[in-house]
Amino acid sequence: MTQRIWNFSAGPAVMPEVVLEEARMNLLSLGTTGIGIMEHSHRGKAFLKVYEETEALCREVGGIPANYKVLFLQGGASLQFAMLPMNFLTESATADYLVTGSWAEKARDEAQRFGNVHAACSSADKNFSYIPAGCDYSAAPAYVHFTSNNTIFGTQFRTEPTPPTDAPLICDASSDIFSRPLDISKYGMIYAGAQKNLGPSGVTLVIIRDDLIERGRKDLPAMLRYQTHAKNDSMYNTPPTFAIYIVGLVMKWIKSQGGLPGIAERNERKAGKLYAYLEQSRMFHVTAAPDSRSLMNVTFVTGNEELDAKFCSAATKAGFDGLKGHRSVGGMRASIYNAFPEAGIDALIDFLRAFESENG
Amino acid sequence: MTQRIWNFSAGPAVMPEVVLEEARMNLLSLGTTGIGIMEHSHRGKAFLKVYEETEALCREVGGIPANYKVLFLQGGASLQFAMLPMNFLTESATADYLVTGSWAEKARDEAQRFGNVHAACSSADKNFSYIPAGCDYSAAPAYVHFTSNNTIFGTQFRTEPTPPTDAPLICDASSDIFSRPLDISKYGMIYAGAQKNLGPSGVTLVIIRDDLIERGRKDLPAMLRYQTHAKNDSMYNTPPTFAIYIVGLVMKWIKSQGGLPGIAERNERKAGKLYAYLEQSRMFHVTAAPDSRSLMNVTFVTGNEELDAKFCSAATKAGFDGLKGHRSVGGMRASIYNAFPEAGIDALIDFLRAFESENG
Repeated sequence: MTQRIWNFSAGPAVMPEVVLEEARMNLLSLGTTGIGIMEHSHRGKAFLKVYEETEALCREVGGIPANYKVLFLQGGASLQFAMLPMNFLTESATADYLVTGSWAEKARDEAQRFGNVHAACSSADKNFSYIPAGCDYSAAPAYVHFTSNNTIFGTQFRTEPTPPTDAPLICDASSDIFSRPLDISKYGMIYAGAQKNLGPSGVTLVIIRDDLIERGRKDLPAMLRYQTHAKNDSMYNTPPTFAIYIVGLVMKWIKSQGGLPGIAERNERKAGKLYAYLEQSRMFHVTAAPDSRSLMNVTFVTGNEELDAKFCSAATKAGFDGLKGHRSVGGMRASIYNAFPEAGIDALIDFLRAFESENG
Repeated sequence: MTQRIWNFSAGPAVMPEVVLEEARMNLLSLGTTGIGIMEHSHRGKAFLKVYEETEALCREVGGIPANYKVLFLQGGASLQFAMLPMNFLTESATADYLVTGSWAEKARDEAQRFGNVHAACSSADKNFSYIPAGCDYSAAPAYVHFTSNNTIFGTQFRTEPTPPTDAPLICDASSDIFSRPLDISKYGMIYAGAQKNLGPSGVTLVIIRDDLIERGRKDLPAMLRYQTHAKNDSMYNTPPTFAIYIVGLVMKWIKSQGGLPGIAERNERKAGKLYAYLEQSRMFHVTAAPDSRSLMNVTFVTGNEELDAKFCSAATKAGFDGLKGHRSVGGMRASIYNAFPEAGIDALIDFLRAFESENG
């Protein structure tokens, strides 16, 4: 079999090899059922068992309280950007958005179609290179929305914002969900596209408090109401069964790594090593402000576009894939989600050092 | 490896073994890339090649003209039920729906939220056991919608309805797409959840004519506009990459079977054998009217609920899975989509005959 290379993709991203091996064994027959995992009816016993296990594992790993539903939806975070205001924002009301990156802006833009939007903070002034220290909330927001990790700009909230209101806190955690322990009870809702820390693209995890589900508008199309999905345990229509199965395998893997505390410790160590190298480098510079740096996406530049390009090209040849930064930041980005192996960080640091010494 | 059994599931459904084998080989590394198919960035060269090949194969297999876009969306047919009227129906306009089953009703119900709906025909009077011979269309419908195959009731349109209007014909072909040659130019749009004839659940194929895309409302959330997806080649946000990859493999398999003409011939033969047996049986009776019978879902009963249950239980034990009929029809349903092997039909007929002789 072809040797696996270091995959720094921002998502879809590297997955644990044990997960892929397990999926491989069940493609033609899930256990002894004689039917492959993708071929099982979503209403059949075998898949229902997979579904129930996956949901229970998400609850266990994430410490999700009983008064929250765990939903597996489709359409990614982008469809959530629309479903949120459709369900919870009325024309005369205001929702607060913390504008810390491109995805936060997209979320805000969809809300503007349905009601008033107040930017409680923004770091647009410095190309989203930092998380603002304070926020200026509106008087009675329908909800407060933030993006916990900004994939493109390499910034991350250290902890949840604390609006002085009982408005539900809603979080797009697509790129850092389950990367560290979370106090779910602080949130009204957390959502995440799976393709960074949870599994393959094509399934969106939504963790939503019961009272918020009830508050949603009742006159929307069935697929756009959280009520529909909650009432039907994500099976109002055929769910993305294979993607849900993989999420379950990833949850098992997280448990095997010591759960979220173990994962967090490893993530701190991985990012810590890489930032430490970049900090002392004379060639490479981190783009995100020191107190705002993401443990998931490490963005850095040389300050010279040609040298950036030379580095990316050399890295690709040496088996480091996906290091080119997003076009809106330039430079490089190392996406090092939960499943990215620590050995790959060590290898990257060695490569950075060698490149710097050869080209410095 | 566990022996595979006969899987009559209505969807997710049996897939060609060569497709599963190929996917299996690429889970840890797509070709020689060193990165598994689920782990590749949707913006990277390797996946873009997969995407382009899949789209080209769909066009080739389906004979899709150049003035139609091929989109790979999420949310299943159920989200299309909502997107259709959101895009194409205004409050004062009327859309015509051919009401031939439960899914057709669900599609109609979503349209009623956005404008007027006219039932051009209905077979609700006989529990949807037939396709009405004629339709009574409204004067100037915004579009005409029908469900080409009714999974639950085992009925199928022999050919497209022909409304005496230039309104776009829109078809939910979830359970018979690419089961026979299609004249796409008769349609404004065809859509299908993948989990019957195209691949795993979690991706929806949408074939839509360019002028219809343009006609869509512009003030909807980005994810709910066909324009967004068409303009971005289904990559406005992260698409369900693995599911799209599998659709490509299924298209290759269809080509290897002689394309849609070859597939159609096989489907006629498979369903023909089963209906022929049921026709002469004294125990089993087909529920669908003779001129409306589906080649994809064969629904039948004994007329005695206890005997139905006894049959289903015996069949499961003998390695025939998923034969229990939908609760709204009862009895049995054999879903025999493209990938269901002819040998499985022969085995089922032998089993039906033996059961009849033992219990007759």
